[in-house]
Amino acid sequence: MKEIRLAARPTGWPTAANFEIAETEVPKPGDGQVLIRNLFMSVDPYMRGRMNDTKSYVAPFPVGAPLDGGAIGEVVASNVDDLPVGAVVAHGYGWREYAAVDAARVRVVDPAAAPTLSAYLGVLGLTGLTAYVGLLDIAQFREGDTVFVSGAAGAVGSVAGQIARLRGAKRVIGSAGSAEKARHLTEDLGFDVALNYRDAPIRDQLRAAAPDGIDVYFDNVGGDHLEAAIDTLNKFGRVALCGAIAQYNEAAPPAAPRNLALSIGKELNLRGFIVGNHSHRMSDFVAEVGGWLRSGQLSARETVVDGLVNAPEAFLGLLRGENTGKMIVRL
Amino acid sequence: MKEIRLAARPTGWPTAANFEIAETEVPKPGDGQVLIRNLFMSVDPYMRGRMNDTKSYVAPFPVGAPLDGGAIGEVVASNVDDLPVGAVVAHGYGWREYAAVDAARVRVVDPAAAPTLSAYLGVLGLTGLTAYVGLLDIAQFREGDTVFVSGAAGAVGSVAGQIARLRGAKRVIGSAGSAEKARHLTEDLGFDVALNYRDAPIRDQLRAAAPDGIDVYFDNVGGDHLEAAIDTLNKFGRVALCGAIAQYNEAAPPAAPRNLALSIGKELNLRGFIVGNHSHRMSDFVAEVGGWLRSGQLSARETVVDGLVNAPEAFLGLLRGENTGKMIVRL
Repeated sequence: MKEIRLAARPTGWPTAANFEIAETEVPKPGDGQVLIRNLFMSVDPYMRGRMNDTKSYVAPFPVGAPLDGGAIGEVVASNVDDLPVGAVVAHGYGWREYAAVDAARVRVVDPAAAPTLSAYLGVLGLTGLTAYVGLLDIAQFREGDTVFVSGAAGAVGSVAGQIARLRGAKRVIGSAGSAEKARHLTEDLGFDVALNYRDAPIRDQLRAAAPDGIDVYFDNVGGDHLEAAIDTLNKFGRVALCGAIAQYNEAAPPAAPRNLALSIGKELNLRGFIVGNHSHRMSDFVAEVGGWLRSGQLSARETVVDGLVNAPEAFLGLLRGENTGKMIVRL
Repeated sequence: MKEIRLAARPTGWPTAANFEIAETEVPKPGDGQVLIRNLFMSVDPYMRGRMNDTKSYVAPFPVGAPLDGGAIGEVVASNVDDLPVGAVVAHGYGWREYAAVDAARVRVVDPAAAPTLSAYLGVLGLTGLTAYVGLLDIAQFREGDTVFVSGAAGAVGSVAGQIARLRGAKRVIGSAGSAEKARHLTEDLGFDVALNYRDAPIRDQLRAAAPDGIDVYFDNVGGDHLEAAIDTLNKFGRVALCGAIAQYNEAAPPAAPRNLALSIGKELNLRGFIVGNHSHRMSDFVAEVGGWLRSGQLSARETVVDGLVNAPEAFLGLLRGENTGKMIVRL
């Protein structure tokens, strides 16, 4: 079997040289384990942080060992009674063709309840839950709010903006990095306004798009986008700090936001979060977002790359913003 | 009578030339008004923002008109039955010797219930309430927290740190701008550690003072102090954004904090606030902090400047950090 290992830690932007495609034995499942053949795996921006050797909320990837991350696979051998061969499961051992996993670390999913199996890595998985929790619990979205979402054509942002629309936002504004993505936001996803941040400074564009200000900002980008949002937020505005992809590959710390002191007079609330501490919301999320997905009120595009050996390139493309919606690797 | 007017808006650090000492008629109280002779007035950092012609949470001071702000005075003429001559009142018309004020805009205070009348501008006034609300409601202080307070020798910070101590903080760390102020924090106010930020980078000092991290940061300074706090905050840390005196007089926006993205993984909560929207906490505050003040468990120093004509210099001194505790002008 093949697996992808971390060959060396990157400085700044990672390249293919940071990854190694290795051949290894298919593992044997031990007591209480199942052997899973992976069908899909996820590449996510947070993995960039794990390539560094710095203390963070998730342990760094060890050099020379396979990477890990969300994956969907099929049980092909089992030592567990209620996880028979043929079961489809979500788990955390991506970046490899096969994995032997403890039963407690897999979650059975229902292929019939999702448009595609890969949806369990995206709109119906932790990505979608991140959008749900960030908008509703962290940013305390309320009906009638004007909402700004950055990275809005990405996996999390595209769901966050649609939840805002479906929950009764007054206006949903999204930013993305190309005209094609901007078109996708307004034409396919129902955003009211889409800003291409490559066209003009995002602060100027946001001010023009939100003459009455914004109430909620869902931040996937950090830096100048966060500064623009702070500038435009109304009194008692709320920010969900979810990601900062603009700076993950920068050697120097960002020069923005430089207007954080506006938070005092505006009485803003900025909250960082990661989805891991909010799994109690999974059932609410699946009920609500799953319903919208089935009724067609919410849609989720995927960018699918074929082949495990292309997973590093899929990840690098994600960091460059080449995906629309969730970036998925099909094994 | 004399009053102090805004002569011109400052750029960067204000000087005496931004103020004008004017002679004018003592006003006549109208229907429903009292005439107050001011005894004490407050100078506060937030007044610097009001000298700019920028939209903020309080209207700018108009050029050529008297400034205003917290004051304590004695009723010397009255058209209001329950505000007799001799009553002592708190109100918002400082920077002048006399003021004619609507009854609805004054609050009678009890001279016997405070160590000095001026305490109603400081530890028992909006300054103390700011500390109380910021620590308990905004930063959600909990017993056992390690707390860092910047500007800790100032009017708000000195009270915030003492409330933390009296409410059962594990450790209270304060920063100030001189060795004498640092000594005051530990010897007079019961802080566990005091950092003189002029001695070494505050980030290094804070890390050394809090090897197990901090749980709450009460920010009066902004900039490098806020960056140091974000660096040192523990998972689920909370920040009350109360002031940013380090940057009020700077023409360029601050280069810090540049590590705000750490808020994501640490799941930090940063909340800005101003005290005006928290007046419902006044009675809780007066009961608790007033009790500590009477029992001697909490103390509040004042820096008193004599004479209305010296109020501009008192304000400029405040911006330079020349005060310990509340800066007061005695008329």
